[in-house]
Amino acid sequence: MTVTYSRRVADAGLGTFSRLLLRWKGSIYKLLYRELIIFTVLYYFFSSVYRFVLNEDQKRLFEKLSMYCDRYAELIPVSFVLGFYVTLVVSRWWGQFESVPWPDRLAALVGGHVRGIDETARLTRRTLMRYANLSGALIYRSVSTAVYKRFPTMEHLVQAGLMTTEELRHLEALPSPHNKFWVPCMWFVNLALRARTEGRINNDVALTAILAELNSLRTKCMKLYGYDWISLPLVYTQVSEVVLGRPLVVTVAVYSFFLACLIGRQFLDPAQGYPGHDLDFYLPVFTLLQFFFYVGWLKVAEQLINPFGEDDDDFETNWLVDRNLQVSLLSVDEMYDSLPAVEKDKYWN
Amino acid sequence: MTVTYSRRVADAGLGTFSRLLLRWKGSIYKLLYRELIIFTVLYYFFSSVYRFVLNEDQKRLFEKLSMYCDRYAELIPVSFVLGFYVTLVVSRWWGQFESVPWPDRLAALVGGHVRGIDETARLTRRTLMRYANLSGALIYRSVSTAVYKRFPTMEHLVQAGLMTTEELRHLEALPSPHNKFWVPCMWFVNLALRARTEGRINNDVALTAILAELNSLRTKCMKLYGYDWISLPLVYTQVSEVVLGRPLVVTVAVYSFFLACLIGRQFLDPAQGYPGHDLDFYLPVFTLLQFFFYVGWLKVAEQLINPFGEDDDDFETNWLVDRNLQVSLLSVDEMYDSLPAVEKDKYWN
Amino acid sequence: MTVTYSRRVADAGLGTFSRLLLRWKGSIYKLLYRELIIFTVLYYFFSSVYRFVLNEDQKRLFEKLSMYCDRYAELIPVSFVLGFYVTLVVSRWWGQFESVPWPDRLAALVGGHVRGIDETARLTRRTLMRYANLSGALIYRSVSTAVYKRFPTMEHLVQAGLMTTEELRHLEALPSPHNKFWVPCMWFVNLALRARTEGRINNDVALTAILAELNSLRTKCMKLYGYDWISLPLVYTQVSEVVLGRPLVVTVAVYSFFLACLIGRQFLDPAQGYPGHDLDFYLPVFTLLQFFFYVGWLKVAEQLINPFGEDDDDFETNWLVDRNLQVSLLSVDEMYDSLPAVEKDKYWN
Amino acid sequence: MTVTYSRRVADAGLGTFSRLLLRWKGSIYKLLYRELIIFTVLYYFFSSVYRFVLNEDQKRLFEKLSMYCDRYAELIPVSFVLGFYVTLVVSRWWGQFESVPWPDRLAALVGGHVRGIDETARLTRRTLMRYANLSGALIYRSVSTAVYKRFPTMEHLVQAGLMTTEELRHLEALPSPHNKFWVPCMWFVNLALRARTEGRINNDVALTAILAELNSLRTKCMKLYGYDWISLPLVYTQVSEVVLGRPLVVTVAVYSFFLACLIGRQFLDPAQGYPGHDLDFYLPVFTLLQFFFYVGWLKVAEQLINPFGEDDDDFETNWLVDRNLQVSLLSVDEMYDSLPAVEKDKYWN
Amino acid sequence: MTVTYSRRVADAGLGTFSRLLLRWKGSIYKLLYRELIIFTVLYYFFSSVYRFVLNEDQKRLFEKLSMYCDRYAELIPVSFVLGFYVTLVVSRWWGQFESVPWPDRLAALVGGHVRGIDETARLTRRTLMRYANLSGALIYRSVSTAVYKRFPTMEHLVQAGLMTTEELRHLEALPSPHNKFWVPCMWFVNLALRARTEGRINNDVALTAILAELNSLRTKCMKLYGYDWISLPLVYTQVSEVVLGRPLVVTVAVYSFFLACLIGRQFLDPAQGYPGHDLDFYLPVFTLLQFFFYVGWLKVAEQLINPFGEDDDDFETNWLVDRNLQVSLLSVDEMYDSLPAVEKDKYWN
Repeated sequence: MTVTYSRRVADAGLGTFSRLLLRWKGSIYKLLYRELIIFTVLYYFFSSVYRFVLNEDQKRLFEKLSMYCDRYAELIPVSFVLGFYVTLVVSRWWGQFESVPWPDRLAALVGGHVRGIDETARLTRRTLMRYANLSGALIYRSVSTAVYKRFPTMEHLVQAGLMTTEELRHLEALPSPHNKFWVPCMWFVNLALRARTEGRINNDVALTAILAELNSLRTKCMKLYGYDWISLPLVYTQVSEVVLGRPLVVTVAVYSFFLACLIGRQFLDPAQGYPGHDLDFYLPVFTLLQFFFYVGWLKVAEQLINPFGEDDDDFETNWLVDRNLQVSLLSVDEMYDSLPAVEKDKYWN
Repeated sequence: MTVTYSRRVADAGLGTFSRLLLRWKGSIYKLLYRELIIFTVLYYFFSSVYRFVLNEDQKRLFEKLSMYCDRYAELIPVSFVLGFYVTLVVSRWWGQFESVPWPDRLAALVGGHVRGIDETARLTRRTLMRYANLSGALIYRSVSTAVYKRFPTMEHLVQAGLMTTEELRHLEALPSPHNKFWVPCMWFVNLALRARTEGRINNDVALTAILAELNSLRTKCMKLYGYDWISLPLVYTQVSEVVLGRPLVVTVAVYSFFLACLIGRQFLDPAQGYPGHDLDFYLPVFTLLQFFFYVGWLKVAEQLINPFGEDDDDFETNWLVDRNLQVSLLSVDEMYDSLPAVEKDKYWN
Repeated sequence: MTVTYSRRVADAGLGTFSRLLLRWKGSIYKLLYRELIIFTVLYYFFSSVYRFVLNEDQKRLFEKLSMYCDRYAELIPVSFVLGFYVTLVVSRWWGQFESVPWPDRLAALVGGHVRGIDETARLTRRTLMRYANLSGALIYRSVSTAVYKRFPTMEHLVQAGLMTTEELRHLEALPSPHNKFWVPCMWFVNLALRARTEGRINNDVALTAILAELNSLRTKCMKLYGYDWISLPLVYTQVSEVVLGRPLVVTVAVYSFFLACLIGRQFLDPAQGYPGHDLDFYLPVFTLLQFFFYVGWLKVAEQLINPFGEDDDDFETNWLVDRNLQVSLLSVDEMYDSLPAVEKDKYWN
Repeated sequence: MTVTYSRRVADAGLGTFSRLLLRWKGSIYKLLYRELIIFTVLYYFFSSVYRFVLNEDQKRLFEKLSMYCDRYAELIPVSFVLGFYVTLVVSRWWGQFESVPWPDRLAALVGGHVRGIDETARLTRRTLMRYANLSGALIYRSVSTAVYKRFPTMEHLVQAGLMTTEELRHLEALPSPHNKFWVPCMWFVNLALRARTEGRINNDVALTAILAELNSLRTKCMKLYGYDWISLPLVYTQVSEVVLGRPLVVTVAVYSFFLACLIGRQFLDPAQGYPGHDLDFYLPVFTLLQFFFYVGWLKVAEQLINPFGEDDDDFETNWLVDRNLQVSLLSVDEMYDSLPAVEKDKYWN
Repeated sequence: MTVTYSRRVADAGLGTFSRLLLRWKGSIYKLLYRELIIFTVLYYFFSSVYRFVLNEDQKRLFEKLSMYCDRYAELIPVSFVLGFYVTLVVSRWWGQFESVPWPDRLAALVGGHVRGIDETARLTRRTLMRYANLSGALIYRSVSTAVYKRFPTMEHLVQAGLMTTEELRHLEALPSPHNKFWVPCMWFVNLALRARTEGRINNDVALTAILAELNSLRTKCMKLYGYDWISLPLVYTQVSEVVLGRPLVVTVAVYSFFLACLIGRQFLDPAQGYPGHDLDFYLPVFTLLQFFFYVGWLKVAEQLINPFGEDDDDFETNWLVDRNLQVSLLSVDEMYDSLPAVEKDKYWN
């Protein structure tokens, strides 16, 4: 787990990135190879038609068409549009990452303030944390494909130990058409209040701190819900315009650029003496590099638009669900009041 | 509700975006078709005049004019201006979304700290939450066309159950020319204080936490009010310059670009041998693509400037009003002290 | 008050922005007409000199000069510089708007926690809020031209009811050369403490919450003071460089561009056969559009640099002063403990 | 103090900025005149060599060289690089301004919560605030040249009344090689705790609020320290790369641009008929404008990189030290429990 | 420690940056010299082949190839791509710096609120702070190469005095596959609770404040973990796309640009009369400047991607570990209740 990629680039040197470039070739090719093949096949199709099929007059016409396309391809501000677009997508993507709810802070408070080692106290602490995790899982189910596939029905959440059958019954009994991720939060509140009444939480300041922490967690869930919602019931809406419409604008820009390139970057008969067409290389190196470069950039953006999918590159939400549940329960149960012997440290006096 | 568009793009592949492009064609066309038709009609009008109406001398003149327009069209930095402008608009739009007040956090505190199962206690909890929702609704009425249409008069808020006739009377009796969205907040404060005095809220820390939460809600309302206000009494003001003046600058840029294109992108008689005019296509593919691309981008911005309208693409404020009221009441009433039986979870020991 | 401009653009359609364009023509013309007239007059002055005054040799020289200017005008990255500059100015402008102190939150706490209906209690509440408003007014006086004109001396604040003569005497007696906007904050603290001692505020948590809220208000005042200060005693300073120096850089860029255009965009005698000079239009449509477009953009920035002036477009600080005082006093006095009868709502069971 | 520059630009009009341009000429010239003189001298040196020294063959060679330089000068994206760079520098500069610690908020709490009018109480309040100011001064000494020059040794702080000899002795006795700005914070904590024990602070909530406020102040000190530190022990480090390396990249771009201009923008003999060289002006107006424009922009950035220097344009840290100490002491001592007579305000009933 | 680089640029003047340019030459050369040598060698290799090896026909072909490459090199928007990319990298880098956990605030609270001078009290305070530092060190171990090298095994942390053998045993006994940086936080909570029970912390408000502060520290640790994690188990993931893929895109852009330059910027035989090839300089000054400029820019970005490495330029995490431990222990032990004699300050009356 500690062998990370970051460490690999930690020390920048001559070959570092070149090596990564090689190592990652597979990955970026995995994303691009289909487009690249299609583009190349089409390119050589037009090339062959020009070279072998057309008669002289048609060749002259094709050449004019090619130069016309080339001229207009240069008018399309592909890099500019991609720059602005990717900047927006990346900041949104990072915003989503920062909205991921971690129950660690809550676990610290619950583990500290809910006192008692009897079974009810343990049960209270564990159940409180389970509610917090359940709330997160309900949100993940509605934003993440991977989690949705893992828990296609509520029953699966029960089987995974995130809720009990009784709780599921309660949840489903509640008459509301809206997403019910907030219901376990209310259970949490009610259970925390009962713990206060029973004296397991022994002061109001602690209770308030716990509820405040729960509310921060809930706010993060709301944010994820918001990120998802504004592309949810608004199918023909501004979000679609932002999340979709702008890719549309961007995608139209990029693909129409390469459509124009298909014709416009053909090598024309040098004998005709067109300016900039002195050589016939057969292999359009720079056009392919541009393709690799622009379409790769676009793919990065498409990958980041929804980071909760199942692509190799998406947040590992299922890992999150498991890690958070385990750490929560460990924090408030196994580790309750557990403390290594407090000894003098090395620098004592 | 869980079938979202995001899920559709969650797994980027070859055809994902192409399919969306087709599926969404309708949507983007809905926004653009009028402009596109007007542009095309005008384009062919000039084209026909040039081809069929003008005599030879006039044709030569038109050709010079066309090349003059083409040259200057390229001087207008349309993509640049749009890039900066859309970035501003999108960040403002997201800022507005983040200012939407959700009463969920407040409901958790009210549901937890206002104790009692008698009717007065229930009434207190429900009324507190209704006040919070009413405050939001009053703000929505002044910022959102959709909500304003739904509640054209205060009476409609009464009919919708957001306030009582008595409350309306109180609200209208208050002598202030300014927006009164803050009045229900003061009622909330007064009712919460009464609940504290009567012991329904049993400690000062809880009361302070509830009031703090109310104040965060109020701050969000203020923000929405601010987003709206600074384009409200300042009709000839800097805001108009930002919200309007800059679109004006941007719109002037975009439309003068396409005005120049109308003439400048005409196909000229190839026989005249003008550079770059070797072919006569009749259909100006690339100019139409540019039109689609730039005007589409501009439309995205216009959609986002005011996200509280009635466009298909605006925030569903009416849905928000309903959802928030329902979830608030459920949280503090039906779910008050409701708790599934606390059982040992699956991972117990 | 609810008929806002935003609503006008809420539903984007074909004509929406065009209509606004017409309606707002007046406004943008009001800002630009002087510059536009000067530019046009100068343009035609040079044009007339070229056409009617110069002899043939001088005409040839002028033509060379014109093409030289045209070439260099294109080297000046006007749109780029403006893009970056306006982005900075807009974010600073919005930052200032968000620093505007609203006493609403404080009023909620004072109205809630300072108990009692006797005259002293009312006096305490009203005076506390008056102090908070006075602090804001003192800041506005030092940042906003409009407020400064309304209250040229401290006496005017007394006459406006924002402070009493006694308070003015105290304020002036305090030996400090620095802005004293913080003094009413200290009075607030002292009065709040007295209220706590006398039991009008009945617990320490409430007192602390009130003081915390006061401090947030004060922080906002400090921020406004900071926005102003760093362009205050530092006349020849880096701020001047940011707020002024960069406009200088930007202004130099824009105006030197149009200086070059004055000569460089003249229509030259088509008979001389200079490339791109095939036509003589007399009216430089595109140059005027560019002027309208770039100088309009610059004007937007100049409007936003100081939003606390007296331009039509600046924040209505005087309105703010009045609104805040009225709402504050209403909140803590008329509305103290005022509550409509608490009735069952429409959705009760 | 209320005559500010902002007010001067508050009302944008035709002449506003032009007048500022004149008034500020001095300032921007002060920054640029040396570079401008050097550039002009070099320009005319090369010009003279070309015109008077070289023989015909050498002239032809020089002309080729000139056109070669001109061509490459246009390849260097100066405006682009400057735009991105200045945006980064400005946001960092504003971040530093926002990290400046103001003790006003703390003074409000200390003045309010530390009760008593006997000498010990006064001493406690004053000493608490002096500690907070001392902490700030220690940070300023390590980040600001101006403050460092004013207080070259710790002794000077003693002389300035910011600490006592006894405190200096304590500070120096502490065995730590690291910056000790945090030590007065610990004294503050200890003194506040003592005040609590002695009952001068009469409740735990108040004490906690005071310590929290102290910690925010401390965080701001840490931030300033961080802004400085990451350019402190890391002389050959990434910060240097950001703060320095990028100026290096930027500076290389700007200066190599003007190096190329020195040769490339020479007026060549019109008789040779080089394109774009039809006129010999002797005075390279546009090149000088570009110089003024780009180097001025770069200077703005250099001014802002470290706002704590002694340039005319840097934050007035010494003024800050004095203002903060005076306002702190006034707040907690002179103004302790001082309150003008509480009278009915003008709007009473 | 107070002689900082910032001070060196604090006063911008003519020579300031030039001098830094010289002084830093070493540094930037250290990063670039290998690439520069390779590029120069390759450049002269192609140059020699062209001049001495090829026959006339091959030379003509090479010339065509060179002009073809030159034309396409200009199509690659290197500066644009770098501008957007570096902006993203810098903001991420600064985000990481701001996530560095400093235990100073926590030390103030622990030193203030955990009372007692007996050995157990001292032990409690020291141990609490040691736990906080241990948590940070565990995070650093997983994000920073330098710290990982210093503490390759947990044993090394014991030897460094950051934990005891007993604690290590506890830590390892805990059955969890996930990073355990949060475990010392739970110990902290448990020890703090014990201190509360034993009355060393004498009120609940203080306890809650301490736990809240611990939680902020923990949040910062989580953030660092997040910055690292999202490039951790997601080797073929979107992060790789962001952190790697985009450099890939950027790197491809930069390196393919210079590949094209290798051929395209060769000096061609002036006798052939190709436009822009009138001179043969042998030394490609401007191409080398561009190389220095663009590749230097790219290197800056590579340096900043992971600031926790061992490059000269990375955050000094080992220094942080030491500084934080020392300052923490000093704060809560040596400085516990230590206070210089409280004397009247210089401005008393």
